[in-house]
Amino acid sequence: MKAAIFVKPGKMEIKEMSKPKIQKSTDAIIRILRACVCGSDLWWYRGISKRESGSTVGHEAIGIVEEVGKDVVAIHPGDFVIAPFTHGCGQCAACRAGFDGSCLNPTESANGGYQGEYLRFEQANWALIKIPGKPQDYSDAQLNNFLTLADVMATGYHAATSAEVKSGDTTVVIGDGAVGLCGVIGARLRGASRIILMSHHEDRAKLGLEFGATDIVSERGTDAIKRIMELTNDNGADSVLECVGATSAIKQAGQVARPGAVVGRVGVPQIEPSSNTLFWKNIGLRGGVASVTTYDKNLLLDEVLKENINPGKIFTKRFDLDHIQDAYEAMDKREAIKSLIIVADK
Amino acid sequence: MKAAIFVKPGKMEIKEMSKPKIQKSTDAIIRILRACVCGSDLWWYRGISKRESGSTVGHEAIGIVEEVGKDVVAIHPGDFVIAPFTHGCGQCAACRAGFDGSCLNPTESANGGYQGEYLRFEQANWALIKIPGKPQDYSDAQLNNFLTLADVMATGYHAATSAEVKSGDTTVVIGDGAVGLCGVIGARLRGASRIILMSHHEDRAKLGLEFGATDIVSERGTDAIKRIMELTNDNGADSVLECVGATSAIKQAGQVARPGAVVGRVGVPQIEPSSNTLFWKNIGLRGGVASVTTYDKNLLLDEVLKENINPGKIFTKRFDLDHIQDAYEAMDKREAIKSLIIVADK
Repeated sequence: MKAAIFVKPGKMEIKEMSKPKIQKSTDAIIRILRACVCGSDLWWYRGISKRESGSTVGHEAIGIVEEVGKDVVAIHPGDFVIAPFTHGCGQCAACRAGFDGSCLNPTESANGGYQGEYLRFEQANWALIKIPGKPQDYSDAQLNNFLTLADVMATGYHAATSAEVKSGDTTVVIGDGAVGLCGVIGARLRGASRIILMSHHEDRAKLGLEFGATDIVSERGTDAIKRIMELTNDNGADSVLECVGATSAIKQAGQVARPGAVVGRVGVPQIEPSSNTLFWKNIGLRGGVASVTTYDKNLLLDEVLKENINPGKIFTKRFDLDHIQDAYEAMDKREAIKSLIIVADK
Repeated sequence: MKAAIFVKPGKMEIKEMSKPKIQKSTDAIIRILRACVCGSDLWWYRGISKRESGSTVGHEAIGIVEEVGKDVVAIHPGDFVIAPFTHGCGQCAACRAGFDGSCLNPTESANGGYQGEYLRFEQANWALIKIPGKPQDYSDAQLNNFLTLADVMATGYHAATSAEVKSGDTTVVIGDGAVGLCGVIGARLRGASRIILMSHHEDRAKLGLEFGATDIVSERGTDAIKRIMELTNDNGADSVLECVGATSAIKQAGQVARPGAVVGRVGVPQIEPSSNTLFWKNIGLRGGVASVTTYDKNLLLDEVLKENINPGKIFTKRFDLDHIQDAYEAMDKREAIKSLIIVADK
């Protein structure tokens, strides 16, 4: 089978590999239909974080189950599924509390391999999300919507949930990447009445407005903060989604939040946030790895099936597996909000 | 009138001063009955933080209103009141959201003067809490309970509220000082079914058990963390009250919390907490200055009047104003959990 591998910073390749096999009784083998490139993949693609040369990559996909281990009873061969980047066991205290992104029974293989023809998926019984029917039943746009439920849409929703966005909130979204844009959808789903998106790119701002943003703040630095304070009568926002992960973004979140607000962060933190500011304004800081399976099963898949949300619009460029290098380059050069990879037609 | 002043680290004095006067239409002049020493006063008493020599001190008291400014309509001369350390205006977005400890209209005089015979209190109309009847109607113990509502009991409750303690929670309380002990009461009021208090002092542990703690962890460092993990089946606690403020305490809170838990912190942060650990476990961090007036008016005063809580038991030594030096020394040497100062009998 073909799979994408990381060669060195800036260089991806397709390699012929042996097809993965069931190793544990809770595994499933999935034939991948669509995968994509994540903003977090750019950390090692750009050489900012380390990754082993020759390792398989990707952590978002939809596909068809080929084979399951003997303890997998909720999922069957032939099922059309979302393969989340998380692998919640569904049984531990973290999963039961709705935090399957921080499952207390972590797996070894959670770190890649979705950008390829076949995938071995651990904790398949609970973590996989079954999509009703077959791929042929859905439009191209719906398939893309499903794909976003493997990570980016669930992560945007996690930002909104972590920020405890509630009905009537004025919410600020920091970050106009794919996660931030999905955060706008998340804030809307949770009932925010005003959603201020910080965006410096016209195409992203446009999509943000389509997703439910009511205001765009295109200023930078202190001008951006001044603008948001003007928009909120100098009170600051009731909730803030921090979808970047940079220390400066957490700091900015604290500056635009009103006392008592909660900042939901899903950007992998670079270093320490400046949290003493948060103390003096009684601002809470929540967030982490998204509860993908929980959100998909309880809400997001339904919202996609009802065509109530269209997060798949974040895929602004598409590639086949053989053009994996181009898919990464398009993300790296910001030519695509998010790169879609078509692995198989059906 | 007599008032306590800070001379230099380790040295307090009583000084004869002129009685304060109404300066703003929202002021009140209060004749103090009881005041007390706060753990946070030890920061400057010990010379760890700076304070101007000759400045008046103290930020917790109960007393009788002597005079009010023309815009104070909710409080009248002769009223028996709690004087919180906070001065919420009651009108701004922060106060309306229940965060009067982070009021957007801060006052200048919030930083001392309660340990004296008379006090000028700003934002008196909303921030003062009226106690029904007269001091003579209440027992000595009830007067002490009322006094705790000026800060320490409200702050302990803020830790529990910030930690989002809910019915059935297993809650860990870090810190067995007066705030931590009141945090135990706060966790109980919010319905925690198991309250694990970390305490190394027999007298404090005993009071903690009386206040509602179900388990005492007297180990230190990694042994304490191991013990808490054992007590929680290796899951960690659903909520953690961080009532110390030290960086090590925030770190410890992250280690004993289960994924998805919230840490409520009310200790003034020394420096930056290590929050990346919190991210990877999806642990939220909330807290700051307590919403004293909000909590007192909505819950705590009622609980004291019904004799449902007895936070006044934290006053384990009492002094008159002339012995202010002894009151500070007893706290500094940990001979008192909290020092009570009797300013006037009625």
